Amino acid sequence: MRNFNFYNPTKILFGLGRVKEIGAEISNAGISKVLLVAGGGSIKQNGVYDAVVLSLKQHGISWVEVWGVRPNPVLSKVREAVAIAKENEVDAVLAVGGGSVIDTSKAIAAGVYVEDIWNTFKGIERIEKALPIYVVLTLSATGSEANPNFVITNEETKEKLGNSSPVLYPRVSIIDPSVQMSLPWYQTACGAADALAHIMESYFTGEGHETALYVDEGLMLSIIDSTDRLLCDPKNLDARANLAWAATLALNGVSSAQLRGDWSSHVIEHAVSAFHPDVAHGAGLAVIYPAWIGHVWMEREAVFHRWAQNIWGSYSMSVALERMRSTFKRWGLPTTLRELGVSKQELPDLAANAASKPLGTVKPLNYDDVMRILEAAF
Amino acid sequence: MRNFNFYNPTKILFGLGRVKEIGAEISNAGISKVLLVAGGGSIKQNGVYDAVVLSLKQHGISWVEVWGVRPNPVLSKVREAVAIAKENEVDAVLAVGGGSVIDTSKAIAAGVYVEDIWNTFKGIERIEKALPIYVVLTLSATGSEANPNFVITNEETKEKLGNSSPVLYPRVSIIDPSVQMSLPWYQTACGAADALAHIMESYFTGEGHETALYVDEGLMLSIIDSTDRLLCDPKNLDARANLAWAATLALNGVSSAQLRGDWSSHVIEHAVSAFHPDVAHGAGLAVIYPAWIGHVWMEREAVFHRWAQNIWGSYSMSVALERMRSTFKRWGLPTTLRELGVSKQELPDLAANAASKPLGTVKPLNYDDVMRILEAAF
Repeated sequence: MRNFNFYNPTKILFGLGRVKEIGAEISNAGISKVLLVAGGGSIKQNGVYDAVVLSLKQHGISWVEVWGVRPNPVLSKVREAVAIAKENEVDAVLAVGGGSVIDTSKAIAAGVYVEDIWNTFKGIERIEKALPIYVVLTLSATGSEANPNFVITNEETKEKLGNSSPVLYPRVSIIDPSVQMSLPWYQTACGAADALAHIMESYFTGEGHETALYVDEGLMLSIIDSTDRLLCDPKNLDARANLAWAATLALNGVSSAQLRGDWSSHVIEHAVSAFHPDVAHGAGLAVIYPAWIGHVWMEREAVFHRWAQNIWGSYSMSVALERMRSTFKRWGLPTTLRELGVSKQELPDLAANAASKPLGTVKPLNYDDVMRILEAAF
Repeated sequence: MRNFNFYNPTKILFGLGRVKEIGAEISNAGISKVLLVAGGGSIKQNGVYDAVVLSLKQHGISWVEVWGVRPNPVLSKVREAVAIAKENEVDAVLAVGGGSVIDTSKAIAAGVYVEDIWNTFKGIERIEKALPIYVVLTLSATGSEANPNFVITNEETKEKLGNSSPVLYPRVSIIDPSVQMSLPWYQTACGAADALAHIMESYFTGEGHETALYVDEGLMLSIIDSTDRLLCDPKNLDARANLAWAATLALNGVSSAQLRGDWSSHVIEHAVSAFHPDVAHGAGLAVIYPAWIGHVWMEREAVFHRWAQNIWGSYSMSVALERMRSTFKRWGLPTTLRELGVSKQELPDLAANAASKPLGTVKPLNYDDVMRILEAAF
């Protein structure tokens, strides 16, 4: 038995047509001015921006807009937005987008109260308070809509680091799966791979914690099943909803309760996408994860064999790994670092970046371990 | 796709040795006087009472005690405790016990702010506010430690009714599975049956909602597996922890997200235990549930067959039901109303009580349906 806390105060409004509720939620909290944070403009095509803005207007909420958050969100954008938030004295941050937009919004919300947000990644300053955060989710993947975590890349130092504070749980997150119908397939597939990876990062530390193992198996099966259903039938709203809800449960504390977590694959992928900002996080994980499993599974045979049987229907780890890779391939995801544009010469730098801090609980990994995983993934 | 909200602000402290944290949690909230609500005295035997009282003392919190909450908690006890809470001007209610103690505590917490708590069951008054509620759980079963629901029996009118308000989420619930090691087996088994029933009440309305179905299957399998492990190995702390955590997830909103719920079996069982206050809720459910399934499964063949396969390993509903009854029997639970002390002559009264309001979503049930279920369960 492991001791743990479970606490998640985010209120989730899930379902069709719920984006229009955002204004009332913000207004009911006595907030009258928000910083609206967004990405590249897809929300102007799919109607989400119009629905949000109409709802804000109807509830007398004014807003300032920050656009241009990109995948693997960067520190420079956060700093720029913090200045805008301060200058305009907003009362809250409203993220309208996917994980990158939400993570940037969290950094902004905390950033207005510290000297420099990067200090909090480096342990120089602490996050003690933050502006309230509201979310309208447009891409299910990171689970950031229902947790207090965020990941930011410092472009200058090529560091991609995670951070967290209990004051950063979104107050309200709206998840309308229908707005994800217009996503390019590749983004859907990357989101599914990311969510799957979140569950596995906990799952493989789960020996003896049957409730977590069973629940996590259910979530993995649902993600694989729902994504395949969308592949066959892109307009299947039930499948969208199942994928979206599973992705939220994958990182809102439910899948990780009882468990310690490993997170090596995430750290190795962060090194890859810090050097290659165009690599989608989920695509990087699809490449790294099978290689990581191949390197570590013998350390905890029981739980890896359980996974092979219950998720992939085989008593053989080789077959399970082949089926996992084949699933990612069917989804149009890369399965080698080469396909991601990584060159063989870079591997030592990536390994050094990932292994710069202690890594791994399923199997503690040093530089040589990471090199072997990267070579297998190459 | 169904629209739903997911919101659960209860902070859960789970694990070994955590009871001693209760004082700090209460004190950190600025509370200095609580009403300690308890049952028949088992907490004086298993050390929980001493640990709670020591922690309260260490944090300068004073308390008034109310003892004697019994299974199927009654309105008269609530009214008595509300008077004590008002007279002593307590700032919060601290439930130390299982579902009956927690439900009574919720009724007290809301009861101090209304004319009469029973009015809120009857729609005459509304619950608008409540004293903060803290919980030290000693029996995993009802999930009341992490939801805003409560059930009280009015002994005079023989009505056993449920009620709920968002102000009744416990602030903090401490779940130390090791304190449940000293429970009589029958209580453990009743708790497992109750938790299993909570999941099934949602599950069978789950067609198309794969994430919920998969997660709920995981929870059901874990409950069955953990309870059987405890049967074989009563001192297995991992199994206790898995059962405890699954019972919490069974009714904290996770298992029911996406789903409508049915709850007929609960209502029929409430009729039984309103007339027979000595019947443990979980024991009543173990009798009613298989009979209910037998009566309704043809209405939704797909989901019931999925359940037969994924939980009981059979393509046959008859086999699945037989295995379910046999599991309850193995756990020492009754499988007939007769064993619960119900007489054949009572069935019409029980059916009239249960069918007095609209009942059921898997299949809407009228008086005749309930009679048929009761006869099958007899």
